[in-house]
Amino acid sequence: MVGGGMGAFIGGVHRMAAALDGEIELVCGAFSSDPDKSKTSGANFGIQPDRCYGTFQDMIRREKRLRPDKRMQVVSIVTPNHMHYPPAKMALENGFHVICDKPLAFNMKEALALEKLVEKTGLIFALTHNYTGYPMVKQARQMIRHGELGKIRKVVVEYPQGWLSTHVEASGQKQAAWRTDPKRSGIAGAMGDIGTHAENLTEYITDLKITELCADISIFVPGRQLDDDGNVLLHFEHGAKGILHASQISAGEENNLNIRVYGEKGGLEWRQMEPNTLLVKWLDKPTQVYRTGVGALYPEAQAHTRIPAGHPEGYLEAFANIYRNVALCIRARMEGEKPNPLYTDFPTVQDGVRGMRFIERVIASGKSKSKWVGF
Amino acid sequence: MVGGGMGAFIGGVHRMAAALDGEIELVCGAFSSDPDKSKTSGANFGIQPDRCYGTFQDMIRREKRLRPDKRMQVVSIVTPNHMHYPPAKMALENGFHVICDKPLAFNMKEALALEKLVEKTGLIFALTHNYTGYPMVKQARQMIRHGELGKIRKVVVEYPQGWLSTHVEASGQKQAAWRTDPKRSGIAGAMGDIGTHAENLTEYITDLKITELCADISIFVPGRQLDDDGNVLLHFEHGAKGILHASQISAGEENNLNIRVYGEKGGLEWRQMEPNTLLVKWLDKPTQVYRTGVGALYPEAQAHTRIPAGHPEGYLEAFANIYRNVALCIRARMEGEKPNPLYTDFPTVQDGVRGMRFIERVIASGKSKSKWVGF
Amino acid sequence: MVGGGMGAFIGGVHRMAAALDGEIELVCGAFSSDPDKSKTSGANFGIQPDRCYGTFQDMIRREKRLRPDKRMQVVSIVTPNHMHYPPAKMALENGFHVICDKPLAFNMKEALALEKLVEKTGLIFALTHNYTGYPMVKQARQMIRHGELGKIRKVVVEYPQGWLSTHVEASGQKQAAWRTDPKRSGIAGAMGDIGTHAENLTEYITDLKITELCADISIFVPGRQLDDDGNVLLHFEHGAKGILHASQISAGEENNLNIRVYGEKGGLEWRQMEPNTLLVKWLDKPTQVYRTGVGALYPEAQAHTRIPAGHPEGYLEAFANIYRNVALCIRARMEGEKPNPLYTDFPTVQDGVRGMRFIERVIASGKSKSKWVGF
Amino acid sequence: MVGGGMGAFIGGVHRMAAALDGEIELVCGAFSSDPDKSKTSGANFGIQPDRCYGTFQDMIRREKRLRPDKRMQVVSIVTPNHMHYPPAKMALENGFHVICDKPLAFNMKEALALEKLVEKTGLIFALTHNYTGYPMVKQARQMIRHGELGKIRKVVVEYPQGWLSTHVEASGQKQAAWRTDPKRSGIAGAMGDIGTHAENLTEYITDLKITELCADISIFVPGRQLDDDGNVLLHFEHGAKGILHASQISAGEENNLNIRVYGEKGGLEWRQMEPNTLLVKWLDKPTQVYRTGVGALYPEAQAHTRIPAGHPEGYLEAFANIYRNVALCIRARMEGEKPNPLYTDFPTVQDGVRGMRFIERVIASGKSKSKWVGF
Repeated sequence: MVGGGMGAFIGGVHRMAAALDGEIELVCGAFSSDPDKSKTSGANFGIQPDRCYGTFQDMIRREKRLRPDKRMQVVSIVTPNHMHYPPAKMALENGFHVICDKPLAFNMKEALALEKLVEKTGLIFALTHNYTGYPMVKQARQMIRHGELGKIRKVVVEYPQGWLSTHVEASGQKQAAWRTDPKRSGIAGAMGDIGTHAENLTEYITDLKITELCADISIFVPGRQLDDDGNVLLHFEHGAKGILHASQISAGEENNLNIRVYGEKGGLEWRQMEPNTLLVKWLDKPTQVYRTGVGALYPEAQAHTRIPAGHPEGYLEAFANIYRNVALCIRARMEGEKPNPLYTDFPTVQDGVRGMRFIERVIASGKSKSKWVGF
Repeated sequence: MVGGGMGAFIGGVHRMAAALDGEIELVCGAFSSDPDKSKTSGANFGIQPDRCYGTFQDMIRREKRLRPDKRMQVVSIVTPNHMHYPPAKMALENGFHVICDKPLAFNMKEALALEKLVEKTGLIFALTHNYTGYPMVKQARQMIRHGELGKIRKVVVEYPQGWLSTHVEASGQKQAAWRTDPKRSGIAGAMGDIGTHAENLTEYITDLKITELCADISIFVPGRQLDDDGNVLLHFEHGAKGILHASQISAGEENNLNIRVYGEKGGLEWRQMEPNTLLVKWLDKPTQVYRTGVGALYPEAQAHTRIPAGHPEGYLEAFANIYRNVALCIRARMEGEKPNPLYTDFPTVQDGVRGMRFIERVIASGKSKSKWVGF
Repeated sequence: MVGGGMGAFIGGVHRMAAALDGEIELVCGAFSSDPDKSKTSGANFGIQPDRCYGTFQDMIRREKRLRPDKRMQVVSIVTPNHMHYPPAKMALENGFHVICDKPLAFNMKEALALEKLVEKTGLIFALTHNYTGYPMVKQARQMIRHGELGKIRKVVVEYPQGWLSTHVEASGQKQAAWRTDPKRSGIAGAMGDIGTHAENLTEYITDLKITELCADISIFVPGRQLDDDGNVLLHFEHGAKGILHASQISAGEENNLNIRVYGEKGGLEWRQMEPNTLLVKWLDKPTQVYRTGVGALYPEAQAHTRIPAGHPEGYLEAFANIYRNVALCIRARMEGEKPNPLYTDFPTVQDGVRGMRFIERVIASGKSKSKWVGF
Repeated sequence: MVGGGMGAFIGGVHRMAAALDGEIELVCGAFSSDPDKSKTSGANFGIQPDRCYGTFQDMIRREKRLRPDKRMQVVSIVTPNHMHYPPAKMALENGFHVICDKPLAFNMKEALALEKLVEKTGLIFALTHNYTGYPMVKQARQMIRHGELGKIRKVVVEYPQGWLSTHVEASGQKQAAWRTDPKRSGIAGAMGDIGTHAENLTEYITDLKITELCADISIFVPGRQLDDDGNVLLHFEHGAKGILHASQISAGEENNLNIRVYGEKGGLEWRQMEPNTLLVKWLDKPTQVYRTGVGALYPEAQAHTRIPAGHPEGYLEAFANIYRNVALCIRARMEGEKPNPLYTDFPTVQDGVRGMRFIERVIASGKSKSKWVGF
């Protein structure tokens, strides 16, 4: 693991997600840019002292020297955006698979370089757009792929949060500080941090690519340097249209990612904060409440469910689905087998490139006076 | 009443809304352009045969000749859009107050003419943007006016319906037929029929005027002549931003008008289909569930509630609030008194002009290649 | 109308419910036991002064002397429980139909006497167990009658309120005062006021009669004389079992009447505070959200719906369904026709007798040491 | 681990719950009564072959011989009810801490023996009444302990499921088979399997002991030997009253455990299927929506939350809170320290004895003709 020392938010999430299914063991790490902190954190996580490294370079170099059956197999990168590319690149170049937090990189150039490197090395690269790990998201995708809603006409995707409603980064809050800092976050704030999740979820569920967009990007909190709110009109392939909005100043909202998709025959609605429910709406028939684990769901939804219906599965379980699938793919590869296609579904470097393009285009559109910007 | 013969939808709504509080009596009408139908309908509504008129012209002329204490006092216009202006104009010119269904008129020119006529005559003119009649909408407006949410930053207003997902107008469905017909509906379909409700609700609750907009207007159903879907970015006075979308092809949606408003200190959320609930969200405090009739609501909300908490008040009650308020204003005027300010709140001809401008600008923006169109 | 002067709660409800459909006109009343108050109230309701009577005796006597086409046709009784029987008896004996608020009477003896009188006179007698007037309640009843849920096994019906959590009757609150006074309310408090609604709703929806019960009846608020809470186990015909609880000390609850019924094949759930939704749950299939006005509902549900789907219909509309149906039945009788069976559905004197028996038995069981008390 | 071989439900839950926080490692097991199955399962879980034992006796004996720092420290028992006592007893007698699935034992005698043994040995014994592990359940308990609701008057606790609506045990479904078999389950079916969860949750949240009860216990499915439904009236210490019902024939219900508690000043409502929400209701003030991670929650709630607000935490996280707390208590003991009191909260053998008493009394009451049975 690179990053994710004690006190970090997303590092802990990755560790719990990795541990849940007993498929992955945390064996080493460069948990902090400060070597002492890295060691203390590692000790706390139960890592052998000699595998708590001071830098990711050190980690990759020294792990590579270990016997193949002893060394780490996949590098998990949980640092701020500007520190995704260097360790990802080095890991790939040294033959390690990578699991990387989103967005993929600091900028488009890095993203494209990683894409090439993954193609060249043939290694596994997973991006933790974790919301696609929910069983009901997979059910939604399959229902649309199987034509149950008919041709898709309209999509509304929202990601409102309220936690940056005040100038909290000025107080030194760590999560806020780097996310609002162009040097660590890149050209976008909210649009990169959560807008890309919305974009990824939309393309995943609908299987439609965004073709152009029109964005109204704002900074509401005085003193802030990056966008904390964005409203975007979307055009998709095949004539579908949509709206995406993401916000970190929607006071009182927690993490209210949600999506509605309307086709010629029906519509569906999914809300991350109640992720085990998928509403499916029909023309002139009662709405159906699809639920994790209930009834004849698509195999893709069932394969990502762990416990019987009515026992809520949450964020960590969805996150863990990515780790579990990566682990199964790595194992299949080690054993020279084809992985079970039900478990090969996780976001890839290509999804990451889409996300970086979204950031680039949405920020460009925000500055543009013409209506539509191509994607 | 002009229009609203048997089988019409909105005419019956107006009649029930008018009857609810016992303040208004239906005494005469020109219920159909077909004089026979008008008579049959009138008989069915319990109207004296000699006051069931064949045309609105007839009705206005002959009612005017009756003794002041016998004749009708207010004309209710419940015809399709192209037939709002002629009876409204004639009623005002002959000294009758008017209650008119929305949108105000067939086009902007008619709207401005009516506005002038109302100013000139000093008569009461109410427009049935009925959703502002709900107690929790009035509570929302007052909370914002009293600064409880702080300065407003963002508004999201939605009006999805699904009933025009297919080419239902081809089957002769009466409601669909005139709404999708440019000769009766005007230049807009969904944006006029329900988009104006969303626009009116937004300006009512926030007390902020839209200053410019950017619209993506669509016709999804083959063969349809007017828009059945629109996604709109909004700019408001004082820097607030927003999104408005209205749709009649959102398959499986009933009448899901809803609004969320976010300020510096908190946010609120109201949904028409569960109208007795108003969610009020705070920075780092539990969300509050405001409910019709519960606790210390603003007098404006209390004055528009009829029954104790927990007994749901619905669409007709909100609609009836407009009729009741108009009746109380007319009565106060007749008695030479000032009306109780709690009961003077109903949408006016000015709101109607705003609505017609919205239609005009949103359709213009839909055709424009530049991003922003002034309002 | 007997009772329901200005300031009363349920009288106003009856007036609005009667007015909604234009089928019933309020023509006279004895609105208060104080003749002056009665006159003032009547004037306020727009009643001719000579038909605002000082007593119900006066009203019945003098109305009877009017020409049949001029006099009142049905007496609406909206007084406290101890004043149901005298006017109901006199009205029936003088040939007037009756609409009476619930519970039917002050005690069982009165109830049985009324039942006989209705049988003997053949007059129409409606009891305003208004909750059975909701379209989705009618849908629920029909689904069960048509066997969609299979044989019924279990019923859970609840009616929690919180408004009597404190000794509010001591403050002179009028609604609380008579409801907690054994001289006006009878032997039961909460169980009579709202327990009977729960009992009626249950027997209406399931079409099963309660055969025995076991009750735990409490007075929680010090100084109160009648029950403010009751928990009851139920046995029904054909082996079904259930729970009924009603409470006026469930702090923070508004008027949360709700029912769940489970059969061999499925279950259903209806909640009065969101009355346009009926959840239908299946073994191993997605739950369905039935909604007022959506899809192929039973004709009984459709016939009690006034407006298109998604426009919420509430308490007054359900109440008005009773008044409308009574009016249509009276009219059919006057015209010598059979009423349309879709509109003959309203609670009767027999339902009232069931309710009075419920009160009697539930209070008896509350005092009993043996488990089951027959119904 | 004793039990929980491949294909078992609750064994997998325990393993995931144990793994989540990295505090506990699965080192050995007797996963099946069939030694071969045990070995295969163990291999699949990544256990060293020589620590996959054929019987629990073998496991306890041989682990005890290992060096203290090498051997297992706590035995997790995830077998059917009749196989809780033998391994629990032997583990305690050999100095191992125990985590045991609920209910505690096959009968009261075993339960009391275990209670004594825990007292005598001073070892840690945790019972996985996992629902008390949710943060919002802990918040509810603290709010009541701190008097926020005032003196408690009424409790309604429900645990409806529908999965045993048909005679599924006849089909060989493993979970159903042992739960409906008196030889493996004990004297109770639903009341033991889920009724005890409801009882435990109630006493945990309210801090009130049940003093007497009155039960109506049923078998609805023909051919079934143990109860599949029960409705129970409850009396608590200090005059509180309540209702508990648990059912496995409530067709269409998933795992709908929920509780409502009403005090003199307010009420609260928690639902397991949306566990991150706690509704707090007040006399004449807006209801508050408490949410995991939002605002100033009690430290006990915060200490059992892993991720920021709006990222749903579910069943496994709540379950893991028990494992994590047991691990921290064991570690504190090993290091000779007092454990942090925030992390000592898990159900104990005493809770287990309460649960067994509940089973005994509720079944006795079901057969009794007198109303109340002491607890």
